[in-house]
Formats: sequence, C-alpha cells, structure tokens
Amino acid sequence: MTATSTQPAVFAADERLVAGADWLSIAEQVAARLSETAVARERAGTPPHTEITWLREAGLLTLLNPKEAGGAGATFTDAFRVVRILARADTSIAQILSYHYLLSHSAFWRADQEQCERLVRQSVGQKWFWGGASNPRDALTILTADGDGFRLNGRKTFASNASRADRITLRAAFGDAVVLIALPGANDGIVHGNDWDAFGQRLTESGSIEFHDVRVERDDILGLFPPKPDAPLPALTTLVVPIHQLLFVNFYLGTAEGALLEANRYIRAQAKPWQTSGVARASEDPYILELYGSLHSDLRASIALAEVAATEIEAAIGRGAALAPDQRNSAATTVYAAKVNSTRVALDITSRIFDLMGARSTSARYGFDRFWRNVRTHTLHDPVAYKAREVGNFALNGRITSDPLYT
Amino acid sequence: MTATSTQPAVFAADERLVAGADWLSIAEQVAARLSETAVARERAGTPPHTEITWLREAGLLTLLNPKEAGGAGATFTDAFRVVRILARADTSIAQILSYHYLLSHSAFWRADQEQCERLVRQSVGQKWFWGGASNPRDALTILTADGDGFRLNGRKTFASNASRADRITLRAAFGDAVVLIALPGANDGIVHGNDWDAFGQRLTESGSIEFHDVRVERDDILGLFPPKPDAPLPALTTLVVPIHQLLFVNFYLGTAEGALLEANRYIRAQAKPWQTSGVARASEDPYILELYGSLHSDLRASIALAEVAATEIEAAIGRGAALAPDQRNSAATTVYAAKVNSTRVALDITSRIFDLMGARSTSARYGFDRFWRNVRTHTLHDPVAYKAREVGNFALNGRITSDPLYT
Amino acid sequence: MTATSTQPAVFAADERLVAGADWLSIAEQVAARLSETAVARERAGTPPHTEITWLREAGLLTLLNPKEAGGAGATFTDAFRVVRILARADTSIAQILSYHYLLSHSAFWRADQEQCERLVRQSVGQKWFWGGASNPRDALTILTADGDGFRLNGRKTFASNASRADRITLRAAFGDAVVLIALPGANDGIVHGNDWDAFGQRLTESGSIEFHDVRVERDDILGLFPPKPDAPLPALTTLVVPIHQLLFVNFYLGTAEGALLEANRYIRAQAKPWQTSGVARASEDPYILELYGSLHSDLRASIALAEVAATEIEAAIGRGAALAPDQRNSAATTVYAAKVNSTRVALDITSRIFDLMGARSTSARYGFDRFWRNVRTHTLHDPVAYKAREVGNFALNGRITSDPLYT
Amino acid sequence: MTATSTQPAVFAADERLVAGADWLSIAEQVAARLSETAVARERAGTPPHTEITWLREAGLLTLLNPKEAGGAGATFTDAFRVVRILARADTSIAQILSYHYLLSHSAFWRADQEQCERLVRQSVGQKWFWGGASNPRDALTILTADGDGFRLNGRKTFASNASRADRITLRAAFGDAVVLIALPGANDGIVHGNDWDAFGQRLTESGSIEFHDVRVERDDILGLFPPKPDAPLPALTTLVVPIHQLLFVNFYLGTAEGALLEANRYIRAQAKPWQTSGVARASEDPYILELYGSLHSDLRASIALAEVAATEIEAAIGRGAALAPDQRNSAATTVYAAKVNSTRVALDITSRIFDLMGARSTSARYGFDRFWRNVRTHTLHDPVAYKAREVGNFALNGRITSDPLYT
Repeated sequence: MTATSTQPAVFAADERLVAGADWLSIAEQVAARLSETAVARERAGTPPHTEITWLREAGLLTLLNPKEAGGAGATFTDAFRVVRILARADTSIAQILSYHYLLSHSAFWRADQEQCERLVRQSVGQKWFWGGASNPRDALTILTADGDGFRLNGRKTFASNASRADRITLRAAFGDAVVLIALPGANDGIVHGNDWDAFGQRLTESGSIEFHDVRVERDDILGLFPPKPDAPLPALTTLVVPIHQLLFVNFYLGTAEGALLEANRYIRAQAKPWQTSGVARASEDPYILELYGSLHSDLRASIALAEVAATEIEAAIGRGAALAPDQRNSAATTVYAAKVNSTRVALDITSRIFDLMGARSTSARYGFDRFWRNVRTHTLHDPVAYKAREVGNFALNGRITSDPLYT
Repeated sequence: MTATSTQPAVFAADERLVAGADWLSIAEQVAARLSETAVARERAGTPPHTEITWLREAGLLTLLNPKEAGGAGATFTDAFRVVRILARADTSIAQILSYHYLLSHSAFWRADQEQCERLVRQSVGQKWFWGGASNPRDALTILTADGDGFRLNGRKTFASNASRADRITLRAAFGDAVVLIALPGANDGIVHGNDWDAFGQRLTESGSIEFHDVRVERDDILGLFPPKPDAPLPALTTLVVPIHQLLFVNFYLGTAEGALLEANRYIRAQAKPWQTSGVARASEDPYILELYGSLHSDLRASIALAEVAATEIEAAIGRGAALAPDQRNSAATTVYAAKVNSTRVALDITSRIFDLMGARSTSARYGFDRFWRNVRTHTLHDPVAYKAREVGNFALNGRITSDPLYT
Repeated sequence: MTATSTQPAVFAADERLVAGADWLSIAEQVAARLSETAVARERAGTPPHTEITWLREAGLLTLLNPKEAGGAGATFTDAFRVVRILARADTSIAQILSYHYLLSHSAFWRADQEQCERLVRQSVGQKWFWGGASNPRDALTILTADGDGFRLNGRKTFASNASRADRITLRAAFGDAVVLIALPGANDGIVHGNDWDAFGQRLTESGSIEFHDVRVERDDILGLFPPKPDAPLPALTTLVVPIHQLLFVNFYLGTAEGALLEANRYIRAQAKPWQTSGVARASEDPYILELYGSLHSDLRASIALAEVAATEIEAAIGRGAALAPDQRNSAATTVYAAKVNSTRVALDITSRIFDLMGARSTSARYGFDRFWRNVRTHTLHDPVAYKAREVGNFALNGRITSDPLYT
Repeated sequence: MTATSTQPAVFAADERLVAGADWLSIAEQVAARLSETAVARERAGTPPHTEITWLREAGLLTLLNPKEAGGAGATFTDAFRVVRILARADTSIAQILSYHYLLSHSAFWRADQEQCERLVRQSVGQKWFWGGASNPRDALTILTADGDGFRLNGRKTFASNASRADRITLRAAFGDAVVLIALPGANDGIVHGNDWDAFGQRLTESGSIEFHDVRVERDDILGLFPPKPDAPLPALTTLVVPIHQLLFVNFYLGTAEGALLEANRYIRAQAKPWQTSGVARASEDPYILELYGSLHSDLRASIALAEVAATEIEAAIGRGAALAPDQRNSAATTVYAAKVNSTRVALDITSRIFDLMGARSTSARYGFDRFWRNVRTHTLHDPVAYKAREVGNFALNGRITSDPLYT
C-alpha cells in the first residue's frame, strides 16, 4: 500500500517543468518502496540501514555530484524535488538525504580546490554517505596537534546521520581559530549516544556524539590550514544556511502532500458520511469538500513558492564567487519566506486531515499521526518567528541578521 | 513533578466562583497524583485500574448523586470543573470520569421512579463505575425473550469504560421497539475486544464489545416495558447530548490548560533563549511572550464560555419536566458554541506550545505530544463543522437538527 | 429599522446575570434610536450633539455616580454592558460614553476627598459631559503661574470628547512636576482643530486641541498642590488603564454583535441562495450556517471573557486603597487577555460578515462596512501585540511592564 | 507620490521570468500615474474616463490581440501580470481592464471565424473598449425579431464597463435558444443606471443597465444563428470562467502588494516606535518585523501559485479545439485554488497592514482603507467557499460542478 501509487494528478503540474524528470520517477519508486513499511518501521524505531542502502542503490546519494566525477550532475532544484517526493512517504528518510546533500556540499565548498576534487571523487567512487555534528548551540569540539596530525575531543548534543556516515563534518576550535573537518566516520574514539528520542523524525539517527581523542589527519581539515583570521569565506558558503532551509521546506511540504494524499485515499475508500450530512458518500460531504479544497489550495501555493525559491537559489549558486551579498540575501529571503509559509501550512494540514477522515482514522494501524509528529518536531529546528523577522528585516531594512550558524 | 502543583494563579479567578470548592481541591489532588505517572502510563498503555480506584476513593464517582442517597450532591457544574482539572494531568482519566457521569445519568433519567431510586442507591452504595456501548453508527444489539428474562446478542465497534464497568448502558432492539438497558458488567457472555488502538486517549478502554447470549433481567431494562411506541421521552433525556458535549469541552480545555502549564514551567526552567534573540532568558523572548499571551487569552475566553454554558445547562436541568424545547435548544446551542470554540483553541494550543518551548521539548521523556494526540483524537467524536452548523441553524432559523444519537 | 429590535435571544443569557437590568433596557432603547440614523449620520459626518443629549436624557452620563450624589450608583460592570449595547448600533457614541466614564473617574480618583465630592456633585447636578486631552505620545502641555491662578499652553494631536465637554481632563507640566487638571471646556483660549479624519469612529470628535493662555484656577488642579515628588498615587488610579481597555473591549464586542445581528437579519430577509447551493434559502446554505456558527461561537467566548474581566475589575475597585499590585496586575492581565481576544474576534467578524451576506451587501445604503472601519480604527489605539506580550509577561514572569500612560 | 516608484526588489524575482518584459514596464508607468491621484479620485467618485484613455494610449486595450491584426500579440500571462501591477495602484482600473480582456475574448471565442476576424480587426483598429451585462443571477434579456434585425429588451442589476463601452457583450433569450450578442454601446435605448454604490471598487462603473427596444443587427449575434440546440460550444469558451477568475486573483494580489508596499514606505518614513518597544525606529520593532515577514511570505506564496495557474491556463489555451474536459478541469482547479488562497491572503493583508503602521495611518488623507474595501467588495463576486468546494471536488471525485455562468 503506497501513498504515491494512487497519487492523483493534482500535484503533477508543478513537476512537469522539471528538466531531468528521470530523477523524479526514481524518487517516486523509492518513495513507493518506503511507504510500504513506513508505519511499521516508525513504530519499531528501526534504524535506517536498509533505507540508506536504497538511496545509495537508486543513485540518489551521488545525485548532485558532477558528471565528470561520476555523479548524476543534477541540480539542487532536482534535489529539492527528490526530497519532497521521499517525504510523502517517510520524512525521516527525506531528512537524512537532505542532510547528506547539505553536509557534503558544506565540505566541498569549504575545501580548497584540490581537496574538493579529491573529496568529490572519493565520495562518488565509494558512494559515501555524509553526516555532521555541527549543532551551534553546543560548545565547539577541541582540536589539538598530535605528531603529524591532530586529536579531536568534545561532545555534541545532536548529530545528523553521523552514526551511519562515511564522513562526518564538524567544526572544531584549534587554538583561537575555528576549522571545518570532514572526519572518517569509522575512526576510533567516536561514540554515538543513540539517544535521539523525539516524538517525530524518529528514524533520523540524530542523537548525541562524543569524540574521545579521535585521530584527525591534516587532509581531513578543509581549506587553508592554519586558517588566516580575516580571510573571507568562499561566497558559496553563505548559501549553506538557505539551502539547508530550503531542503527543510521541501520535506515539510512533501510530508503535507503525503498527509493529504492519504486523506484523499481514505475518504474515498473508507470514510463514512456523517449521519446528518444527507449525502451518500463522505467524498460528497460539503464540509469535507471545502476543507479539502482549502488545505489543498494552501499547499499548492506553498509548493509554488518553494519552486520560486529553488530558482533563485539555483541562480545564486550559478553566480559562484561573484555572488554579491545583496543577491545572496534576496535569495535567502525568498527561502525564509517559503520556510515561514510552509511551516504554517504543513502544521495545519497534518493536524486537520483528521477532520477530513473522522474518528476511525486515529487508529494506530494507519499511523496518520506521524505526519504531524514529523513536521512538528523538525519545524522547531530554529524558531520560525525569527525567520519571519528576517523576511521583514530584508523588506524593511534591506538587511538580514547574520546567521551565527556558519560564520 | 506535577502539572498542577506549580500552577500559577491565572486560572484561579473563574473557579473562585465555585460554591463547594472542596471538590476542586480534591480534583487537584487526584490530578497531582495522576500527573506523576501520566507520561509513563501512557507510554506503557497501562489499563486504568488503579486510576479508577483513585477516583472511587476520592469520592468522585458519587459526586453527582444526591446526598440523601449517600452521594455528594454536587452539581453538574462541579462535575464539569472536576473533569477539567483532571484533564490537565491525564485526559484519558478525565474522559473515563466524564462517561461515567453521563452514562449513569442517562440510565437514571430513563428509568421509572422506583427503578431510578434503586439504581442510585445501589450505585452509591457499591460505588459503581458505569460504562456504555451505545455507538449509534453500529447496528443495534438484539434483545430476545428467554424464560422470565431475556438474552442479548450483538457487537459494538466502540464502547466506553465497559471493560471495567459495574453497569453497562446500551440500547437494544426488542422486536420493533428500542429499549435502554443497564447491564451488569460481570454477566457471562460479554467479551471485550481490547482493541482500542487510537494514537490518543490511549488509556480510555474504548475498544469493541460483543454480547453472546448475555442474560438480561427485566429490572435491567429501564423505563416502561414494553415501551409504548409514541410515549414522549422524559424532558431531561434531551439534555444528555448537550451534557455529554460539555463534558468533552471541559476535558479539551483542561488538556489545553495542562499543555500551557507545562510550557510555562518548561520555559522558565529549561528553555534556552534563541541565539539571535538578544535576551538572557527564554521567558523574556518577545515572540515567546506574545505567543504565550495570545494562546492564554484564547484559552481564557474559551473557559469563560464553558462556564456560561454550564450555567445554562444547570438552569435547564433545574426546569426538570417543565423544560421547553426552545429552552433546551438555547442551552444546547451555547454548549455547541463552546464545543466549536474549544476544539479550535485546544488543537491550536496543544500544537503551538512547542513553538514556545523549542526543539528539545520534543523529547519523549516529557511526553508533551500527548496533549495534541489526546485532543486530536477525541475532537473527532463528532465532526465539529456540524456543531458550528447547528449554532448557525439556531441563530438563523431558530431550530437545531435533531440529534439521531438519542431519540 | 434597528439592529437591536429584532435581536435574537442568543446573547441574552450572559446578561440575565445582571442585577440592575433596567440600565440594559435603557441602553437598548438608546441603541434602537441610534441605529435608526447611524448609517446616515456617519455618511454625513454629523457631530454628535444630539446623541450626547440622548445619553444625558437617558441618565447614562450619571450612571456611575453614587446615588447619594444624585447619580444612578451603578457599577462599572453595568457601564461595560451599556457601552457594549450602544456599540451594536453606533460605535462612535459608545466610545464617547466610554471616554466620559473613564475621564471623569480619572479625575475623581486623583482629586483629594473634598475636591472629589464637589466635582461629583457638580458633575451630577449639571449633567456634565467629560472630555480629555491626554495623548501621551505628544509633549505635555505647560502650566505656568499667573496671579492667583495659572495659564495653560500647548497642543495635543488627539483629544477625546473635548469639543463638547463641560470638563476636559489633561496632564500638564508645572516646573518639574506633572499635574492633572479638570478644565472647564468653555474657557477662553481653547481651540479645537476639528481635524479628526480617520476612516472609522468618524463621529468621535477626536481631533487636535490647542491651549492658548487658558486660565486655570487652583481648584481645577486635582489632588495635592504643589504635588510632592515621591507621593504614591492613589491605588485606584492604577486601574485607570485596565478600565479604559475594558471599555474598549466592550465596544469592540458590541460592534461585532451589531455586525452579526445585521448579517442575521440580512440573510433571512434579503440574501439569495447561491446558484449551485441546491438550497431554497440562503439561511439553509451549509457554508453560511457553519461560518455563522463559527463566528457566533468565537463572539460568545469573547463576551464571556469580557464578563469575567468585569468581575475581576469590580473586585479590584472594591479593594480600594488596599488594592495590592499583584491583585491589580492579575485583574489587568484578564482585561488585556480580553483585549487580545476581542480584537482578533471583532476584526474577523466585521470582515467576514460579508461572506455570509454576499455581493449585494456591499451597497453603501446598508453601511455595513462601518463595523470593520470602526473596529479597525480604534483597535490601533495601542498595539495589540504589546498587550499579548503583557499577558505572557504576567503568566511567565509574574509582572507587567509599567504603563507609561498614567504614571 | 507613487506606490510603485519606491517599490523594493522583493517582488521582482517572479517577474524576471517574463518574456516580453516591456509590457510590465508600461504597466508600471501607468500604475505610477494612477497612484498619483488614486486616493483623491476614489474619494470624489470620479468616473474613469481619463484612466480608460490612459489604458488605450498605453496600448493595453489591444495587448492580447494578435500582431497580424495590429495588436501586441501578448499572452494571457502578460495580461495577468499587467492587471496585477495596475492593481497595486488602483484596483478599480485593474478590474476594468480585466473585464475588457475577458469580455472581448468571450465574444471572439464564441464568434464564427469570419465574424471573429472582423471583430478583432475592428476592435484593434478603433481601440474598442469592451463591456458586458451578463450577470447570471438576473433574468435573461429578451431578443425578438424585427424586420431584418432584432430588438432587445430587459434589465440587468449589474453590468461591467458598459457605460463606457464600444461593445457590450450579453446573453439574450431568443425563443427557446440563448444567444450571445456583441452590442454597439452607442445604440439607442441603452440606459445606464449609474447606481453602483458599493463601498469598494467604487470607480468600476458596475451599475445597472436597461435595454429598451435596442436595435440589434444579425452580425451582432455571435456564432451560428439560429443556434443549433445541441451544438457543443467551442472548447475555448470553457476557459472563460477560469480566465475570469484568474484575472480576479491577479487584481486581488496586486491590491495586497500595493497595500504592503504602502505599509513598507509608511513604516520607514512616518511610523513612530511604540513607547515600550525599546527600539529607536518602528522598522526595528520585533512585532512589526515578524508580522511584515509573515504577511509578505503568504503573499509571495499566493503570487507564486497565480503564476503556476497562468502557466496551466496558457497551456490549456494552446490546446485550442483539442482541449479535453479533464485538461480544462485540471487548469480550472489550479485557478480556483489560487482564488481560494489569494482571497484569504488579500483580505488578511489589507486588514492587517494597519497593525504594522499604527493609529495615525487611519487618516483619510492616506486612503489606506481602500485596499480592504476594494478586496472585500470584489471577493464577494462568487462565494469563495464554493470555489474551495470545487477544488476538493476535483481532487476527491475528479469532477467540477458545471458552472451555470456560461453553459
């Protein structure tokens, strides 16, 4: 039973614009496979070994890597859509793939050119799965010199993908400097807390991580070393946060699509009309029709804005080193607008689908509450009020508060 | 750690109006006890044996029974408030007590006078816990004559409290007539499905029930028997649905109070200020202050309306047999208005408390998602759009669509 | 044709609680009279001479004055309800009466005892109409000594009732001190700008005012003179702002009631069913019924909270000099919660009534847009976000930001 | 002082996609001109003679006509954007141009080929301005034979553009048949009621119209005559309603853009920070920033969906006679989704801009209430609940209730 197999054509139009539509088909196939077991896996809390393998086998891990390096050479726009499609079936897996894209590019963009080429080659060749441990609300990990290399120590309350990752990106203090590291996930001394226990995004392996005298090679440190204190960061790194946020937006919207598609099928196949409704089928109830239409309309608008944001991010990436701060901020503002809008829409839809389906849809065998739990959990990643504030800040004052996440 | 012990004074004002304030103190004590184990019990899915015992020992099962019969002689207004207080800690237990009140009175009000006096006496004397199996969306159970008594057969998809009940109320078809029965819960042939698996109200024991040739005595059948086809029902029975709904309203509102109280404590004790907020404590964040204030304001309004509705229901009960249809409909409309308003408010608050508390509040150890799951599950009991419709219907057309639940 | 004459019983319940119900009947009579000409007067921008006379003749100007002084001896709760009833027909007149109550008591409570008794006696005896010029966002007016009296100079961007007032209250700087003055409105040198041109509350006479060497007597200065720098203000003066706000709340809610009552009548008498609705009358349209019910429910809740707030303010007033800051803040918080809730509800209802009535209801001959224009204009008196903030502030931090309006 | 001259870049991105960007520049110039007098003209109720001349001179009347006939050969997508831009300054003029586009094409698409070519040629050559009188809620006008021509009689409660129109389209009963007529506006016997008195869209000349024995030529009757009873309508005519609705959507969104742009300028230039805000400028107030950002985000999403709908309508038009019902319904559903979403967003923004600007922004000299009045008036054209219903109907049942407007 898959959410995507019976998916009506209503969402198709936005996607017809896509150039390399193959990846969307592949994503739909993976989504179909994910949805067969999504409810059971979530209930069991099964770590996503198998599912990461599916992503790898489907070629989705190397989607964004250049063709000349053996990757698919797809665009971030493709990646946003792939993530959205996967989220219809399983938001945890969509998040995992999102962080993989983000964290690997965060590394590639900070690396110097030779490092970058080598990392990309290895990442594609060995189909690396990337993780990270960069929660800025914890203290930095500490890097110290040790012979011809270094030792890493410290703890992060949350990590992303790290327990399964071939490479873990993280920032560490080295004396007065801060360096970005791409650490082999198999190194000795890395301890995973396996303590992620949120009520949503249960399969994302986002628990704590500790580093006990972990060996770090010079080559694992990205970019110039030792870093020059005042060297400007590569322009593309200023896009890391907006891209991150737009990946979020897409898996929120995909989750809302999944919720509405399940409601659609349920209403047609199972829901009974209310006793005083005077209609023969639930799908003819005036209030169900109107509410469905209203939620669907809001979702269409939010998806449309996510697509506009993707276009702007793509254009900003295309400017490369020439990307000006105002261009970056304009694209970032569109992403944050999409974040603000999609957060409200996704929370609303995942809670109100039950008004469409009625009392029996709360049975645990459907697992329909996971949509709300997933969206509710991840939309707290950063407070949405502050993103709305930045949208207003750019519109009114022409500036955005600099994000302390990635200086 | 209890939700009620640190409860600020802000909700106190409405309750200072209460005459017999003792019952509110007792309810708060039971709530404090419930909240100590609420998260763990819900996770384990423990059937509420112990908790029903607490209700019994606290005197809450006989709260509404007349003093002359040994009950507390309290009013339905007291009962509404008791239910609201319990729901701050545990909405399942608040629901169980609500159905106990409703189902027992549904029986008392349908019984003839002598029956009623006997039932009340027994119910108080033995501290009966009442259940029911009256879901109108299933077929009626079938009653057939058998010697000096009867046999009952049939199945109901949902029941309420039945698996623990001393008496189970239900309607059965007897030939062309429909009779109301108060069945001893221990009778042979009653099989409980134990199949309640909704994602909310998990401890309410609302699963299916089957009756296999269950013996029914003449005295178990309430009111005149055989029933006269056209005999009007006692006037008070027309209040059963509004009272039912106002009990719901109160446990929705209590759940929202509990959610907001937990958020209050969490913000003060644990939440960290956002990194770009510029404030030292989460409780000084401008967006947290405003959102808290906004949710709190809506909740205060909804509680105030529930109190107005209680006053009107009380007045309608007081009219007894003289209750006119328009008086009944006016009181019912106020209850339905409270239902419409409280449903929106409770869903909103239980979802948005997380915006107040931030990402870490999603940890399973807090169980804060149970507030939304509980409210979301039970607010589907009947579609709220149809209750809004009835409010409009009475205001515009002076009538209410007759409720097919209890003819 | 009056909004109040056909008013259905749905709002009656809350008011049945009222002790001196006579004043409500009188208010309803005045409201009926006001509504006959409300649309035409607003369009013509007629200054409210006649309407103030009606208030005076009906005894509403002296409603709050003690019986022993010849007043009606009614409570603020009565005044809140009177204002709400008038606002159903004409929000401008309801505002005018509100400011009259507020400004006169602001004077009485600041006066020393002898002054107060004299002022009340005169105010009742001559049926004074009170105004004020206290906008705190302008500079203070300046008071200087002049022989045995004083001279007043300055300008205020907005005033209230002043152009018709027998007494105008205002604050003035006298050297380093700030004094409160109750100035005879007929004094020479007072110039009214007649420049109030907001799109709502058009008949409130809220334009600018200038003072050119206006003579002020010693007796016009309230309280001790010269004021002691650190003398605490009388406790009751700390209730001036909450009472002000609760008067606002009541005329917002009355306006919303008026809007919904007009819609009710229009739907029944004039609205045509939509062509694809399948119903014979607009009042049977499922979406009209549901929306009406939903708006009505929210309004009932908001009114219920306004009544709770009135009870708390009444209790705070009753404490007199013994009123403790926390008691004041608790009552003020309930008022602010009512402000936050009623602002949202009144804006929503006055905009959405048109969805109930349809396209033809926008004809200028009905003047139905005045409800939104009136509410939209006055709800900007102070930003509602800051009131929500204070509600959160009290709930989370046990304090309220001190209001710079009346130090 | 023009709304468009200081318009920040934030809306630019969506429009950069536009091919023939010239028309957008021209529209912006006309909008700048309109906004100079918009407030004064609305207050005076000046009929839009001059403004129609501006549209004619700017080439906007012939925007959609084919280049080979002397028109601009632009697409409907261009027209949607032009209308949106004009609405930022003056929603009445944007409506007038919308109806001109719609009514002329309604005629062209119903005409047979030769008639169509002639009509287009004349329309372009003489820069005709088109009107209509087709309100389906009135009785049809009556056409009767008269010599070699016909006579038309009847009355319509509302008309569009008719009092200034070179051609008026309308439907008339001819015996049992219904015919579409393109009537010269200067014919004898046409009487304009000049009785449009809604509180919004004041300059749209939408009053009643009467036909007293108006002469109609055979050539004024469009399509085959006499009509064959069962002849299917040309496929493109099924797009008339969706195109109509998408024009509405665009002038709602343009109005919301105009409102937000005015608020933007006002906040930066005039608004004072609130006294307890602790910030130096209104544009730094946390609540203003967040609310602005939130409204802006919703508007961006709604505009993005309007653009998607334009793409789908364009594709449907491109299919011409081959347009299948499902393709039509899919495109129509996207338009209706945009209608549902934009109605909510535009009402919300035009009411809430005042929370951004504060009390003084209600002064009549700004005329800022016109945005809400315009949107509120026109969004009642057809009940939005029924459009939401159709969105749900297509998603759940794969069908749309056939619109009785244009059978």
